[in-house]
Parts: sequence; structure tokens; C-alpha cells
Amino acid sequence: MKVSLDCIPCFFTQAIKTARVVTSDEKLIKRILNEISISFPSFPFNVSPPEISREVYRILSDLTGVEDPYRKIKRKCIRQALALYPKLKRLTVSSSDPLLTAVKISVAGNVIDFGANLDFNLKRDVGKVLSQDFAVNNYPEFCRLLAKAKNILYIADNAGETVFDRILIEELDRPVVYAVRERPIINDATAEDAYLSGVNKVARIISSGCDTPGTILKFCTDEFLNTYRSSDLIISKGQGNFETLSEEKHPIFFFLKVKCDVVASHLKVEKESILFMAQGQRKRPHSK
Amino acid sequence: MKVSLDCIPCFFTQAIKTARVVTSDEKLIKRILNEISISFPSFPFNVSPPEISREVYRILSDLTGVEDPYRKIKRKCIRQALALYPKLKRLTVSSSDPLLTAVKISVAGNVIDFGANLDFNLKRDVGKVLSQDFAVNNYPEFCRLLAKAKNILYIADNAGETVFDRILIEELDRPVVYAVRERPIINDATAEDAYLSGVNKVARIISSGCDTPGTILKFCTDEFLNTYRSSDLIISKGQGNFETLSEEKHPIFFFLKVKCDVVASHLKVEKESILFMAQGQRKRPHSK
Repeated sequence: MKVSLDCIPCFFTQAIKTARVVTSDEKLIKRILNEISISFPSFPFNVSPPEISREVYRILSDLTGVEDPYRKIKRKCIRQALALYPKLKRLTVSSSDPLLTAVKISVAGNVIDFGANLDFNLKRDVGKVLSQDFAVNNYPEFCRLLAKAKNILYIADNAGETVFDRILIEELDRPVVYAVRERPIINDATAEDAYLSGVNKVARIISSGCDTPGTILKFCTDEFLNTYRSSDLIISKGQGNFETLSEEKHPIFFFLKVKCDVVASHLKVEKESILFMAQGQRKRPHSK
Repeated sequence: MKVSLDCIPCFFTQAIKTARVVTSDEKLIKRILNEISISFPSFPFNVSPPEISREVYRILSDLTGVEDPYRKIKRKCIRQALALYPKLKRLTVSSSDPLLTAVKISVAGNVIDFGANLDFNLKRDVGKVLSQDFAVNNYPEFCRLLAKAKNILYIADNAGETVFDRILIEELDRPVVYAVRERPIINDATAEDAYLSGVNKVARIISSGCDTPGTILKFCTDEFLNTYRSSDLIISKGQGNFETLSEEKHPIFFFLKVKCDVVASHLKVEKESILFMAQGQRKRPHSK
């Protein structure tokens, strides 16, 4: 999907939030916002939102000298998620449909997103998602494709969510390649985050090559692209990956929580909805 | 109060909303946003938010060629408010405390604000405000000052709300000067809007001289300033007037609904609160 004019205020909100994670110097933050403003007219506007976010965060990194503003927060999220892991694992294996429960848990992990919202409470929000219905639910199609799939590409989103992804990968019971960001961007998972989450025990970790909060194919490595093209089933986690892959023709399933009005309006669903959506399914939302 | 960095995304949101009232040409809107972005670093940032809004709306007017984007909407609001007038008037005079009811009705009229939020339902929201408690309530102080007051300055906010103000002015039972904006800005009331609302039947209408969504004394006419300085009691309606007059030393009572997080945080009250607040009282909020 393409960036909307309505994304513009949000780029500034994200820049302010992230800058405040790094510094309390309001003058420096104003300089960052000035620089973003000046650069703004030169940003391309026929691209997906994450391609613009990349520019915004680049300016922020340059001016603060901090390459990974969310490093500490990401570590804390991973620790908290690891502490929840045994309980979530028990919940999964003891449920009547472990695969569906694992999918829900992996989507619940998607509540961890500092790009969209810093206020969250991991345990409470996970419980809420587990009891929530999918606004779009293509589980039957997913099961059909999974039954035939010999290999799976799993495109990660946030650090911390990575631990929740492990639970789903274990239920998939297939060889899985787990793709993460090339470099830190917001709180998105890098290879280091994936290892700290123990994903290496259940999947092969690769970098997509992207330093954007989404997967933009023109920035991806050959290794990623080869895996992407040869996979029988692709799982794409989170809003950023949806924004960047929504127009691609591949057997992708998008697992996400809808975190902003622009995506909600694009998909004709309510903000805060959770989706289990096959590629090309967005024209029949509200199916259960 | 001074503008906060957190106001910046909101300036862009307001520009997009207002531009869409005038045009559906997204390229033109992008040009407007580009122009605001480029000008942004040169905006003064030791001023109140309405002083920046003025710059934003000036750019919007220049590029669209439309001086009064909300003209039609303002007319509609006045018509709707006039239709409610008889009912609200009956409610006031039949209540146990007509003055307090009239204050609440005038604050309820403040729900009409397209600058902060386009989604509103006049009748429903007015009912909600009437049943809501003030988060800060300095009614006793107001009554004491009113008893001694020989003349009152009433600083208007939005078109439509002007009709609700009439009900309060009638209960004040004193000579009232009613100050409006010099030129159209967002949906703020001009002299024309005040006349269409029938305020001329109950008060003398003057212009403040401002073309900002607030009252910035350095931009005001001598006529306004003389009235301002010689009035025994000043009623200031809405958030914009609060933002611009909050640091002045005058017997001002602020009647407003808190419509954004920045003002809520500044006043240490919840967003959506309604306030009946004497100048200098903001350090003891939550009094009832």
C-alpha cells in the first residue's frame, strides 16, 4: 500500500516519541523535526509508509548519534516475553487446536510496537488479543496451503514478538527460514534479537537486507529474494510488513494487529482489529 | 501557554483536515503540506499554539485561494444551534440555578470545533456536556466577581457556539461586549457569525483584531485592548483563547472543553474535561 497524506502527522509523532527515548533535550528534538520538515518535500510519495519512516529514522540517528534508540527497550521486551514463554507454550499444547492458538499467540506478540504506541502492558494486551476474534480469518486456506508446504518463510516484525513467533514455528512442524531486519529500525527484530529470543533453536535466521520497518523487495538481499520466491508459504508479521508486501503476488499470510487509522481505512476494518489474512483477501473483510 | 513539540503533528493534521474541506485534490494538499514543512523551521516556537496555527492557515489560504474554508460549515452550525436555542433557553430558565445552567450550555456550545475534531454530533454532545461535572469549578469565585461587575468582556470562540453564548449573556444581566475574530480562521466566529447568531440583540459586538484561533494581545486593536483593560470580568471561551491568555494577569474566567493532550497535560486534567476556571487557578485542578 502507498503512503497517505494522513501518515504525515504520524511520521512526526513517531520522530518525537523515538527522540524522547534517546534524549530529553527539547532543542535537539526541535532540530531533528526541523531537519525532517526541510527534507520532507523531497521524500518520495509513491512508496509505502516504511520507506518514508526509514528516512525519518535516518535523520534521527544522524542527529542524535544513536543508531539503535530502542536497544534497551527491545532487550526488556525479549526478557519479558521469555518469562511468558512457558505459560504460553502450555496454553498452546493443551488447547483443542494448538496451531490456531499458536497463530493467535504470535499475533498477540504483535502488540509490542513502540513505533505506533509506547503505552502497552504486555501481559494484559496479550490476554486481550487471545480472547479477540479475527476481523479477517483465512485459517482454512492457511491449513490447506500448510498441508502441502515443504518450506516456509517467516518474516519477523518486532523484538519480543520474536519469542511468540517461536511458539508458532514449533507448531508449523516444517523447515522455517526466519527473516529479520538488516539493521536496527524502531523496535524491529534484528538477527541479534532473534538469537536472544531463541528462534535459532527452531528456524534458520537470515537478514532480509532491509533497514526499513517493513520488507521492501528492492532493498532485499539475493539470499532473501531466493528464499522468498522459492517458499511454498510465507508468513508476514505486523503492519510494516503488510504495508510493504500487500501488493505482491505470493502465497503470503498476513498476521497483524491494525494499529493506525490509515491501515484500518485501507482494509475497511476497525483500528485495533486482528487479522489472519491471505494475500488478495482484503476485499472481503469481516469474514469470520 | 507555549507551543509544545507535541503540537507539531497536530498542525499537520489540522492542515490536512481543513484542506480536505476545500479540495479533494491530493496533489494540491501535498503542495500545501510541503510549503508548511519548508516554512516550519522559521516559525517562532516561544509563542502560543494559535500563533503557529495562523501561519499554517495563511499558507493554506494562499495556496487554495479560499479565505474562509469553513464558511458553509459555520453557517450550518449556526442554523443547527439556532434550532436548539428555544429548548436550551427553556432548560435554563426552568432550572434551579439558571446562571450555572447557562454557563454549562455555553461550554456545551464549545463542542463545535472543527479545528480539533470534525466528528461531532451537536445534539448528542451537548447533552453529554450538560450531564458532565466540571474538572475545575470556580463558580463561587465567579458569582462573587459577577456581583460587583459593572461591565463584562466576553471573548467568543466558534461560530455556532455563539448562539449558546447568547443564553449565558442573557443570564449575566450586565452590559456585555462580545469580541470576535477580525477575519475567518478555522471555524472561529467573526462579526458576521455573531450577527447571524443574534448576539447583537444582547451584547455589543467588536472585533479583537486577531486573525488567530485565539486572542494574542499584540495583534489586538486599541478598541479591544481598552475594553479588555477596563472590564471588571472577562469570560474567555474555548481552548484557543485559553492558550493565548493563560499567562495574562486579568480577572479572566476560562470556560472550555479540553480537546487535546497537550492542554490536558499542561492543566493536569483529563482530555475531554470541561473547565470553569478562574485565571491563576490551574495549580489546584480537580476541585469540584
